[in-house]
Amino acid sequence: VQVLIEGLRRGDTGAVARLITLVEEQGTEGRAAVAALFPATGKAVSVGLTGPPGAGKSTLVNCLVDRYRRRQSRTAVLAVDPSSPVTRGALLGDRVRMSADHGNGVFFRSMASRGSAGGLSAATSDALLLLDAAGYEMILVETVGAGQGELAIAECTDVVVLVLTPHSGDLIQAMKAGVAEVADLFVINKADLPGAAETRRNISQALRWRSQHRLGREPVVLTVSAEKEEGLDALVTAISATYTHLQDSGLLEQRHRARLEHQVTARIREAIWERSHAWLARDPFMQEQIERVLRQEVDPYSAAEAVVQQYVGGVSAGMGGGAAEGGREASGL
Amino acid sequence: VQVLIEGLRRGDTGAVARLITLVEEQGTEGRAAVAALFPATGKAVSVGLTGPPGAGKSTLVNCLVDRYRRRQSRTAVLAVDPSSPVTRGALLGDRVRMSADHGNGVFFRSMASRGSAGGLSAATSDALLLLDAAGYEMILVETVGAGQGELAIAECTDVVVLVLTPHSGDLIQAMKAGVAEVADLFVINKADLPGAAETRRNISQALRWRSQHRLGREPVVLTVSAEKEEGLDALVTAISATYTHLQDSGLLEQRHRARLEHQVTARIREAIWERSHAWLARDPFMQEQIERVLRQEVDPYSAAEAVVQQYVGGVSAGMGGGAAEGGREASGL
Repeated sequence: VQVLIEGLRRGDTGAVARLITLVEEQGTEGRAAVAALFPATGKAVSVGLTGPPGAGKSTLVNCLVDRYRRRQSRTAVLAVDPSSPVTRGALLGDRVRMSADHGNGVFFRSMASRGSAGGLSAATSDALLLLDAAGYEMILVETVGAGQGELAIAECTDVVVLVLTPHSGDLIQAMKAGVAEVADLFVINKADLPGAAETRRNISQALRWRSQHRLGREPVVLTVSAEKEEGLDALVTAISATYTHLQDSGLLEQRHRARLEHQVTARIREAIWERSHAWLARDPFMQEQIERVLRQEVDPYSAAEAVVQQYVGGVSAGMGGGAAEGGREASGL
Repeated sequence: VQVLIEGLRRGDTGAVARLITLVEEQGTEGRAAVAALFPATGKAVSVGLTGPPGAGKSTLVNCLVDRYRRRQSRTAVLAVDPSSPVTRGALLGDRVRMSADHGNGVFFRSMASRGSAGGLSAATSDALLLLDAAGYEMILVETVGAGQGELAIAECTDVVVLVLTPHSGDLIQAMKAGVAEVADLFVINKADLPGAAETRRNISQALRWRSQHRLGREPVVLTVSAEKEEGLDALVTAISATYTHLQDSGLLEQRHRARLEHQVTARIREAIWERSHAWLARDPFMQEQIERVLRQEVDPYSAAEAVVQQYVGGVSAGMGGGAAEGGREASGL
């Protein structure tokens, strides 16, 4: 890991790629790398692009990458697939092709869920920190395919862009998935298709229903055509303007804080479980409860509650005045 | 809840449906219902049907339902969608139509993820217990769409049927997703399409590579055509034969045990987290660590570790000889 960390610091993209594989695995090595590189983070801008499959997100990302490159921004792309591993092969195929198109200038990486959806958003947050530490100034995070974790992944970034098509169902689906709630910028791609103006009106109307948007102002709605390269400079400008607004309003700091707090809490959750799990595996009371469930003497939920009570009861009883630091009450377990 | 439980016992399908909504929400009411009805469970046979989208699972389920009805088995269908809520609307549409087709004889219910994928498989296990207690003898669990949780949901059932088409990519994708590993029975649907014989050979070959199958024998591979109603009686026979094999070999009991153990453990995990979470929210040390992360004085992982250490350290120190029951060591937390 140390060698890889030094490689990343020297700008070796191979080292960056291998470190991202480590955070994807969510093990101790990945955590060690993030821990070591964390002080070097804090400079990158991250933009999440989300939306239904077929909205043309990859084409749009390609266009944005070209523009950021022309502006001399060191750019990286994370294509994150929160959907089933079943479709992974095909998507990776597209990705590899896309990666090749961009040549050396841009770091490209796809990430897929290896475990839970929660694990993937933790891995995405970690990958963003690694890319930030590696000196990438603009990081585009594209969610590939719709999945459980789409929303969680969009929320790992500073600015959330929702990409829709003039197809009227897109907005309804995005609202159902909760993605419309967190979008800072709405982009109607394929604006040359019929219905673009109507979709735009529908979005504006839907936004007006909301009394308070988390952006503190109404999000901008843009129509673009990635295929025809139309409206893309306006999109780049709108992304910058949104970022500046987030910065000036203090919202960026709030989001940053919420993200880090979430990251710490998620890790605490895992660590507590790792320890409890090891303990439960060799707990005779737990085994006894399982036997009782099998004999239908007790139901699974009452058995679980009994184990937790036993566990917490023991802890509370033993705590007394024992907990030293900070005067915390461990009985709250 | 008590009224609904009595309703379920009387055979009121409306009560069953409302109780399933409660377990879908994974709250205290749903848990109370499962706890109350658990002693009445243990008679149903559950069959999971999984496979790629477009394999014709719903048509196949329709055909199976007809056959089980003719055999006077009280039958229920759970269509579980572990994929994104984005596509939920459309799928529910199909489901409602299908539900109507079957009239009164069959209980039909679709379930979608309202939270994590893990939550959905817990909800599915609970719904199976409710349907079992309600007296359904045959419960078909169909996973709708491919998703993170497909595998976990298939594993909630006694017999796992993997439905494929003659399309060569299906098997590869199922193997990638790990579903081929847990399948007890392979069904090649749409057997009238070209490639069925080849797919069958490929599956048999792939199965032979495995030295040990979890079934203790090689799984049966069938070709059917749900559309043309071909091979369906053979499928019903194969499902029964597989169930009998599982019963005779002791594997059914093993699986049953593993499922209940998993259910208890998952609930313990949630309960421990609910309590830790409440405690962390008002822990000044935790807040201090978050501030330090924001100032980049410490990385998120070291901060999490410090909080857990503090927590566990306090608990261990306080435990001493305090833990009364069973002589367990709480220092293992």
